[in-house]
Amino acid sequence: MIVEFSVVPIGRGEALAGLVARVLDLVDKSGLPYQLTAMGTIVEGEWEEVLGLIRRCHETMRGQASRVDTHITIDDRAKTDDRIKGKVREVEDALGRELKK
Amino acid sequence: MIVEFSVVPIGRGEALAGLVARVLDLVDKSGLPYQLTAMGTIVEGEWEEVLGLIRRCHETMRGQASRVDTHITIDDRAKTDDRIKGKVREVEDALGRELKK
Amino acid sequence: MIVEFSVVPIGRGEALAGLVARVLDLVDKSGLPYQLTAMGTIVEGEWEEVLGLIRRCHETMRGQASRVDTHITIDDRAKTDDRIKGKVREVEDALGRELKK
Amino acid sequence: MIVEFSVVPIGRGEALAGLVARVLDLVDKSGLPYQLTAMGTIVEGEWEEVLGLIRRCHETMRGQASRVDTHITIDDRAKTDDRIKGKVREVEDALGRELKK
Repeated sequence: MIVEFSVVPIGRGEALAGLVARVLDLVDKSGLPYQLTAMGTIVEGEWEEVLGLIRRCHETMRGQASRVDTHITIDDRAKTDDRIKGKVREVEDALGRELKK
Repeated sequence: MIVEFSVVPIGRGEALAGLVARVLDLVDKSGLPYQLTAMGTIVEGEWEEVLGLIRRCHETMRGQASRVDTHITIDDRAKTDDRIKGKVREVEDALGRELKK
Repeated sequence: MIVEFSVVPIGRGEALAGLVARVLDLVDKSGLPYQLTAMGTIVEGEWEEVLGLIRRCHETMRGQASRVDTHITIDDRAKTDDRIKGKVREVEDALGRELKK
Repeated sequence: MIVEFSVVPIGRGEALAGLVARVLDLVDKSGLPYQLTAMGTIVEGEWEEVLGLIRRCHETMRGQASRVDTHITIDDRAKTDDRIKGKVREVEDALGRELKK
């Protein structure tokens, strides 16, 4: 399955890049395929490994902030791998041209 | 922590109340405090029990549909219990009157 | 259509009930059917009136905080009115008993 | 402000790339900076132009499906432009190395 998530500390000021970097380090070291975007992180894997990673990210952030909002969107389809790039490719194929990504 | 989630089967038609009812039955039997709304289910508990419940809901739905989108929003605050009603009460206290709920 | 939204100021501390109350006052005065939950506000209406209301809520919050995250979920179905309670009723009918709400 | 959105038709089967392509064509022709990801589309602009675009996408999809779920996340910060790439760069700078994107 493919999962997008974001982990937002509330009440720690508005410049969050430093805190977000600590969380991204966990993602990078997880070994799972991922993509960082301006609005969140997209990860691909099974429930156990993906949700286990998100839990570590969430708890690391909670260690830094007394309130944390975490958003998770799961797209789970009976299907193969390489969906992070594959889904974008399917849309481009249907449209007949490349899009910004 | 307090968590809102929705589990949406894609490609099973648009009248989803029957499928959603099977999922809600799992929530109801979990013993966790919850509230059903028109847009999702709000549950209160620790990570393990809440995310374990959402996993069972997600997998039950995936047994019925080959594609499932699940949305999860976690509000985790160093704080006490009874947040499902407590958060609404705080807003009403700040506003000085009752709101529709 | 039926819409859930939340407007979260980032970097204004974690006790947000006072700021949220100012926003809820706008909702309450809009005249649209709504429900306040622990995780957001559910409103029913047409695109113009609902998104116009959310814009006023978002901009009021931005007047109080230099960074605001707003989440909007729209469920738009060729259908009748009274969906805030109707959707919950459908699930209960399918399940054959009442649920917590 | 920077906005991620997804427009999901319910009940039209699970292979949605063709329908999504029609929507992406609207985004591509809007002239706004955007990025297509596996989980949604990220757009940058003012409220009027971004929400106007999302409305056209939503209504185009509703012309093809009798039920549509649209998710919108707005990150609005008193700040400059080029946030789609800028936010990712800030996280990488804080981490001291490049990440997958």
